[in-house]
Amino acid sequence: MVKKFSLSDASFERSPGQEGDIDTANMVDQRHGGPITIGYGRYGPNQELIERMAVDDVMVVLEGKVSVSANGATVTAGPGEIVYMPKGEKVTIRSDEQGAVTAYVTYPHWQEARE
Amino acid sequence: MVKKFSLSDASFERSPGQEGDIDTANMVDQRHGGPITIGYGRYGPNQELIERMAVDDVMVVLEGKVSVSANGATVTAGPGEIVYMPKGEKVTIRSDEQGAVTAYVTYPHWQEARE
Repeated sequence: MVKKFSLSDASFERSPGQEGDIDTANMVDQRHGGPITIGYGRYGPNQELIERMAVDDVMVVLEGKVSVSANGATVTAGPGEIVYMPKGEKVTIRSDEQGAVTAYVTYPHWQEARE
Repeated sequence: MVKKFSLSDASFERSPGQEGDIDTANMVDQRHGGPITIGYGRYGPNQELIERMAVDDVMVVLEGKVSVSANGATVTAGPGEIVYMPKGEKVTIRSDEQGAVTAYVTYPHWQEARE
């Protein structure tokens, strides 16, 4: 079934395994029987998240700005820009002073891959 | 490798198999060795595209408005909203008078699935 999601539908939860002010809200995931997870992410100001990617993860920045560092290189993305974090990469994700809102798509499901 | 994409990096091509003013620009696809395709879509005003989904497709609306009809139901999405079109669905995608820009992620690669 075709589904539409809005930020106002999102039930945010603290992103697991870290203490920062970073929340995620899966809109589609392993509970729905498809191959991909879809959700919204919300970063408070000046937050940092370090993670080795267990899945392929695409982040579309909707508000604010996010920088992603990996292997000594850093990219910074604002509204309408996309960051692709392939499985296996060790990344550091940082928000700036304005925080950020993102949409994400992962293959396969990130919650299962982390377990 | 982590990669960042902007709309200004996109090389748009006419979306295959249809005559409307609808263009796509894959930024990541089967050429890059990963499991997913990532790209930008651009719809002129009042365009229509009818398709049976060969892949799972997630569309994030960046500008304008897109409506998607399937099985007699229609959803309409604007900036920051997400439409999920699962594999197997027959969908009609329409832009309104302002046209639209979207980001998309498909699993697996849509160009291969259509061949």
